[in-house]
Amino acid sequence: MAKKAVILLSGGLDSATVLAIAHSRGFDCHALSFRYGQRHEAETEAAKRVAQAVGVEDHVIMEIDLGAFGGSALTGAMEVPKGRDMEEISSATSGIPVTYVPARNTIFLSFALAWAETLEAQDIFIGVNALDYSGYPDCRPEYIAAFQNMASFATKTGVEAKGGEGITIHTPLIEMTKAEIIARGTELKVDYSLTVSCYDPLPDGRACRSCDACQLRLKGFAEAALADPVTYAEAME
Amino acid sequence: MAKKAVILLSGGLDSATVLAIAHSRGFDCHALSFRYGQRHEAETEAAKRVAQAVGVEDHVIMEIDLGAFGGSALTGAMEVPKGRDMEEISSATSGIPVTYVPARNTIFLSFALAWAETLEAQDIFIGVNALDYSGYPDCRPEYIAAFQNMASFATKTGVEAKGGEGITIHTPLIEMTKAEIIARGTELKVDYSLTVSCYDPLPDGRACRSCDACQLRLKGFAEAALADPVTYAEAME
Repeated sequence: MAKKAVILLSGGLDSATVLAIAHSRGFDCHALSFRYGQRHEAETEAAKRVAQAVGVEDHVIMEIDLGAFGGSALTGAMEVPKGRDMEEISSATSGIPVTYVPARNTIFLSFALAWAETLEAQDIFIGVNALDYSGYPDCRPEYIAAFQNMASFATKTGVEAKGGEGITIHTPLIEMTKAEIIARGTELKVDYSLTVSCYDPLPDGRACRSCDACQLRLKGFAEAALADPVTYAEAME
Repeated sequence: MAKKAVILLSGGLDSATVLAIAHSRGFDCHALSFRYGQRHEAETEAAKRVAQAVGVEDHVIMEIDLGAFGGSALTGAMEVPKGRDMEEISSATSGIPVTYVPARNTIFLSFALAWAETLEAQDIFIGVNALDYSGYPDCRPEYIAAFQNMASFATKTGVEAKGGEGITIHTPLIEMTKAEIIARGTELKVDYSLTVSCYDPLPDGRACRSCDACQLRLKGFAEAALADPVTYAEAME
């Protein structure tokens, strides 16, 4: 029997690639997505399409209300920044972006841990990336290592392994550029037309082209010398 | 201005005592409770009464569906064990109890961390106890230390503190016996009639007297030489 893994799946480009990687390594994939007061439902719809296309064992969409705590553009009141240049987006010196959701990856990984324990799975995959999003504290390798250490104390699986490996948090994209991620996913036949990256899509579903996520995605496809199959709003002059 | 703290509040005896302790230390208390597919709503109702009695700044009840993952008596299908003797309940050699909810404290603390960051609070209180519930992996000091370490990498507050204290997870009950907890809470004028401990209350609201939680509570009050103001089902002969 194949080993089971829990894969955090947002419906974006990165997590679709991670799911394909886990699948290619022979794991029985259990995909986990969240509705957490995002601005749009497009993400979870994309997650469903991606899960189906890759062929997962199971897909749970967990509803949580991070909006109850406030605090980020992606869950509520603040404006998504538009038209920032690549230096503003990528540079660690620009600090933590306003689109940061407090403790989001910690919450997501905690649910993944609960499910992993229920499944008796020891492997969790998450598409964090330390290069493109250097401003998010919970995308860095030292954070992931600390979470994995905590998980070994938190769970029956971890405790019963008694100092053994327990839970492993896999972050196959963590040191890859966006172009490398896209190239790897393309090798694995990820259908990127199913994914959604835009923070603030148009009412007709087109990606806005100007938010940080759109800009990083477009740059990644350009650098990988591949065509992005997603439809964008016209560039403004 | 008083420092803010997030207090995990279940409506049980332990967390009511923790809230009173945090309040007595001068924190502005932000209480956080969860509905997570429990067998009964009595717990969150108790949490509301306790929060109001102590006087919190704010009380958020977060709805989460841990039942989607299955895996524990407290979220669903399995029977709550009744009439186990104290040795079976307390002994570490009996292993992890079936009422263990996978990664529950990790999920609860993750939400507390998200709220703390939104509030710019650096203090989280949780009523875990290593003595009475030695079977739960996520009630032990080494788990709490690992969570606190992870939190320092996970959050803006932690990162900006740059090696400073960041987030502190307070566990004032961790080394206390149930009798000591009850004695401390009584000093702080906790109204234990507002709390609910029973895993499986009767339809009329009385505590069952025979589940592990009832037995530990009754033993605690007996050892503290105090009367438990909660109403129990008659003892069976």
